[in-house]
Amino acid sequence: MSGQQDVASPGTVWGVGLGPGDPDLMSVRADRLIRAARNVAFFRKAGHDGRARCIVEGMLHPSVTEFRMEYPVTTEIPFTDARYGAVLSAFYADCVAHLRALSQTGEDVVVLCEGDPFFYGSFIHLHTRLAGIVPVRVVPAITGMSAAWTATGMPITWGDDVLTVLCGTLPESELARRIADSDALVVMKVGRNIAKIRQALATTDRLDDAWLVECATMPGERLMRLGDVRDCPAPYFSIVLVHGKGRRP
Amino acid sequence: MSGQQDVASPGTVWGVGLGPGDPDLMSVRADRLIRAARNVAFFRKAGHDGRARCIVEGMLHPSVTEFRMEYPVTTEIPFTDARYGAVLSAFYADCVAHLRALSQTGEDVVVLCEGDPFFYGSFIHLHTRLAGIVPVRVVPAITGMSAAWTATGMPITWGDDVLTVLCGTLPESELARRIADSDALVVMKVGRNIAKIRQALATTDRLDDAWLVECATMPGERLMRLGDVRDCPAPYFSIVLVHGKGRRP
Repeated sequence: MSGQQDVASPGTVWGVGLGPGDPDLMSVRADRLIRAARNVAFFRKAGHDGRARCIVEGMLHPSVTEFRMEYPVTTEIPFTDARYGAVLSAFYADCVAHLRALSQTGEDVVVLCEGDPFFYGSFIHLHTRLAGIVPVRVVPAITGMSAAWTATGMPITWGDDVLTVLCGTLPESELARRIADSDALVVMKVGRNIAKIRQALATTDRLDDAWLVECATMPGERLMRLGDVRDCPAPYFSIVLVHGKGRRP
Repeated sequence: MSGQQDVASPGTVWGVGLGPGDPDLMSVRADRLIRAARNVAFFRKAGHDGRARCIVEGMLHPSVTEFRMEYPVTTEIPFTDARYGAVLSAFYADCVAHLRALSQTGEDVVVLCEGDPFFYGSFIHLHTRLAGIVPVRVVPAITGMSAAWTATGMPITWGDDVLTVLCGTLPESELARRIADSDALVVMKVGRNIAKIRQALATTDRLDDAWLVECATMPGERLMRLGDVRDCPAPYFSIVLVHGKGRRP
């Protein structure tokens, strides 16, 4: 049997929300954890620096160890394809094995998460596999949608407005049905779905009230009326908004 | 005519989101603006310190000037009563006159805003009256709902979940109709509406999945299954949540 000095108490896997992109909009806690981290981990597409990593450029400790979790697939395989699920599951299992091994040696790891980790975040795939096995803690953050409505200079909700958050991946008829029944609206995952989202807004007579916000708080931030936008794919970090008008029941 | 030295360029009214309550969850920008502010303004109920002011306790510059905007009424007058609107309008007009006068002397003012200013925030009432008249800038923040779902230790949305944000002030039938049609759910403005919200969740068979989070990130944070809670009024800073399960279209 090995001596007690070999038994480290497990390290914590921190899911740290970076917020919408401007490092100045990180929380004070996130800023402190990231600057002090000995280990950071982050997702990125193969061949890209990774947006999460870009946000913290210049903040990391010189002796930090970086664990790059490179997605093995892109959206080029439809997610309804069984291969997509199998490939991603194996990938997440590898990531989790590495994070768990680090934790077991007593090392804390900061997982850099774009936006808020528990709001449509990829950290969720690690969290579901790590929770209950190693200590996991999450630091919430400013969401991309908060940054987007702030960029428009108008409140998204007031009074008793109903806010619906939709993904542009839903079928057009489903988008239209839900848009018609909302006071305020946020559409995430715009990208290649922009023509469909436009059509759903036009059908429900809300297109004139809709805004497209690209890369809110980041270099390249753009704010446009959606009706003025051509149907080319929007950047991944785009959000469509319709502001509430202050419903009173 | 007075000399040029008397003509100050107007100061900026900053709507600075404080986030959910823990000062450590403020943004780096908010932290810096608040510590440097020469003028701060905040809403509070008569006879209370004001929650926004409590959050920044210990952070303000020793020579700061504080402008306390004390609500002249409480929820004791129903907001359907015409007096409610008239009294509040006069109150906001007074607040705006003071902020505008400060701006005209070249002074910046930081308005301390709980949560995110443009998400059901009382700053909206100042913003609508000041925008276009004096320079106004808004700093987004972590919402109370992000803090609440983080407190549950579970993601609120993943996959293509539809998230609906409702106010507990809506009629029970309206709450139930919208709850039945949502994957993930956030109910704001819980307080005295808790029994109605419970009933709407029970009617739609979602009560067993519902959580009540009180004072997330603040001293006194409590997390409970809503089904276990008695029908006494919940604190104002309570949020009801139902987590999405990861919808795939």
